[in-house]
Amino acid sequence: MTAEVEVRQVAQRARVASRSLALATRAQKDATLHAMADALLARADEILAGNAEDVARAEAPSTGSGQAPLAANIIDRLRLTTERLEGMAQGLREVAGLADPVGEVVRGSLLANGLELRQVRVPFGVVGMIYEARPNVTADAAGICLKSGNAVLLRGSSSARSSNAAIVAVLRDAITESGLEADVVQLVPGETHDSVKALMRARGQVDVLIPRGGAGLIQSVVNESTVPVIETGVGNCHVYVDRAADLDKALAIVLNAKTHRTSVCNAAESLLVHAEVADAFLPRVVAALQGEGVTIHGDATFGAHDGVVAATDDDWATEYLSLDIAARVVPDLDGALEHIRTWSSGHSDAIVTEDLAASRRFVAEVDSAAVLVNASTRFTDGGEFGFGAEIGISTQKLHARGPMGLPEMTSTKYVVIGDGHVR
Amino acid sequence: MTAEVEVRQVAQRARVASRSLALATRAQKDATLHAMADALLARADEILAGNAEDVARAEAPSTGSGQAPLAANIIDRLRLTTERLEGMAQGLREVAGLADPVGEVVRGSLLANGLELRQVRVPFGVVGMIYEARPNVTADAAGICLKSGNAVLLRGSSSARSSNAAIVAVLRDAITESGLEADVVQLVPGETHDSVKALMRARGQVDVLIPRGGAGLIQSVVNESTVPVIETGVGNCHVYVDRAADLDKALAIVLNAKTHRTSVCNAAESLLVHAEVADAFLPRVVAALQGEGVTIHGDATFGAHDGVVAATDDDWATEYLSLDIAARVVPDLDGALEHIRTWSSGHSDAIVTEDLAASRRFVAEVDSAAVLVNASTRFTDGGEFGFGAEIGISTQKLHARGPMGLPEMTSTKYVVIGDGHVR
Repeated sequence: MTAEVEVRQVAQRARVASRSLALATRAQKDATLHAMADALLARADEILAGNAEDVARAEAPSTGSGQAPLAANIIDRLRLTTERLEGMAQGLREVAGLADPVGEVVRGSLLANGLELRQVRVPFGVVGMIYEARPNVTADAAGICLKSGNAVLLRGSSSARSSNAAIVAVLRDAITESGLEADVVQLVPGETHDSVKALMRARGQVDVLIPRGGAGLIQSVVNESTVPVIETGVGNCHVYVDRAADLDKALAIVLNAKTHRTSVCNAAESLLVHAEVADAFLPRVVAALQGEGVTIHGDATFGAHDGVVAATDDDWATEYLSLDIAARVVPDLDGALEHIRTWSSGHSDAIVTEDLAASRRFVAEVDSAAVLVNASTRFTDGGEFGFGAEIGISTQKLHARGPMGLPEMTSTKYVVIGDGHVR
Repeated sequence: MTAEVEVRQVAQRARVASRSLALATRAQKDATLHAMADALLARADEILAGNAEDVARAEAPSTGSGQAPLAANIIDRLRLTTERLEGMAQGLREVAGLADPVGEVVRGSLLANGLELRQVRVPFGVVGMIYEARPNVTADAAGICLKSGNAVLLRGSSSARSSNAAIVAVLRDAITESGLEADVVQLVPGETHDSVKALMRARGQVDVLIPRGGAGLIQSVVNESTVPVIETGVGNCHVYVDRAADLDKALAIVLNAKTHRTSVCNAAESLLVHAEVADAFLPRVVAALQGEGVTIHGDATFGAHDGVVAATDDDWATEYLSLDIAARVVPDLDGALEHIRTWSSGHSDAIVTEDLAASRRFVAEVDSAAVLVNASTRFTDGGEFGFGAEIGISTQKLHARGPMGLPEMTSTKYVVIGDGHVR
């Protein structure tokens, strides 16, 4: 059977199952989410056994597979522990605690002719997720999609296939026992790129596709998909230290944005400093960053400090996701805005300033999903924003921009009630 | 110069101009819209002269062009009159009267850590419009995009090229005189399909593409575009007359939905009648529709009436946009829901019933942009919904669904204000 046929079949089952899920009450969905959480813990052994297979394969690929062992940090993401399973279960319980977006009346009015008009949130229908070797995404995505009334087709990395198969088997049993249809959560069959490709071409069968992972994965989905895509997460984030910055705050924010967690999309990758505060700030920030093990890729002014590596245009464009930062002195706020306009990926950009006018210009003119004033870029996060759960951070302008919680996983419909109204 | 280079150049100019437009106040934009309206009337002669060229070309294509004269109804859409120009000017003034979506705070809160969080509406940036031979769309789209802070690239039908060139020249002069940059409104150069193709491939340069026109145009844009598309307007709309319908209301709604205006996407194309009321309703509805000149493409039960043509599956799928309707008797509400699930284009579907439970099931289970109870499908319209202006009716689920007014022409950004906040 070709990948295309296989994907069409799971999508068809998902469509049928999505219809009853769309009509499920919040109480049914929340009870199901708790049952899913319970099942993850009750059947931890199965899941950990599946995961052990994946980890073993990643550490020592079978001879003849032609594959090299995976890098240690990828194996770390892949590995599940009892503690991580507890985190996944806790995540599902938290989703159960969130308000149900389905049925929310977004707006409504009584029209002049007596027609009642309401715009109401409804599920998309069938959501496709394409993601890398983090088995926790399997449970997170299943929970968020179920709560928002969407059937989900999961296509994780083939390196996590045994983990994902075990998790999905456990979740599907819990869903069935709770009285909903198991086909609201399905793995996309097939381990080759053909199944990813088929998923991207399933326009009409899959309503939305959400890729989560590195820039390469996301770009390939954006370019090849005929299914509407929500582009997530590439973050070339900037911190601009203005002439009017409080340099203590600036130092704390730069350090936090760069070093709090380097592998995430809201970590800072570039530092811009106003020329008037360069003399005062550069020695402090260079010493502090280097003290944390950060390599600075700097312009000529930064380059006057020991240990700073010369930056090229590639550095301005790079999402390092590591203990590296590009750094440049800019002549003024306009220079900072121009640099950000040219190089930012439109995720999160921050200004540090005590000058109200400068902060207002930065907020108005920086065209990014999140613009921060005197705060670390690390705050761009569904949890930090109080959304309670997050399926990803959108860097596109259509539909959703920034952290996506449950409401962003829905569409709307208009309901019009009359009494024989004609035009 | 290739079409690709030409499109890149106009898109680049649009991007630059969009930046100052995004910062323009409502007062500036409204004054500009009034100036645009004034200019359309003051320079009506130029526009009508351009239009006369288009109409002449449409009626009698030059020998050797290989083109046939356009159909009378297309020439009617193409033709401008003083009255139609006044309508276009009035449309611009109405847009000036609408609230500015830009800057609207969609939601906001003070987070537990003291961070101020706001989600604020911002323009997309650069919008591309691809449309057919209706020169009024040129002014409408320019007005809606300007008010929502977006630069627009207009690619109308080449059969309206002289009209569009004249209208855009007049609008650009008015924009310049009002102090905004003329490049917020531009025609896409080139009259071949190459320029449409280049527009569809201008990902990153054009933020959103909105096709308006027939099903063929929209499908080709949806399939070929790498720029995010908002799919508009194909309407295979249904009226379902339930067992518990008030048959007088049902008759009025069916007639209105089918015959009030046949060429529009919210006109009804299919009639479904519950078997229990078929005997009472069919003679009345067949006579009334035929009395208005409607050809009924019916199933066997409808076929027992004189003049009814036998329907095939093609009829259930067809958006006639003419005095034709497909008609079928269904065994029950489930049969109606099944038919609509199979054949509806997801635009607007109506039930006529006095039964609350039936209306609630119909509203919950019909997955369309608009679901109407005891009201004509013709009400799915930005004007009727009170939105004041409409760029089109979206039949997709991502971003906007149903009539799109000014807020649907925007994205949002998150603004986060702190005082040295770090995680």
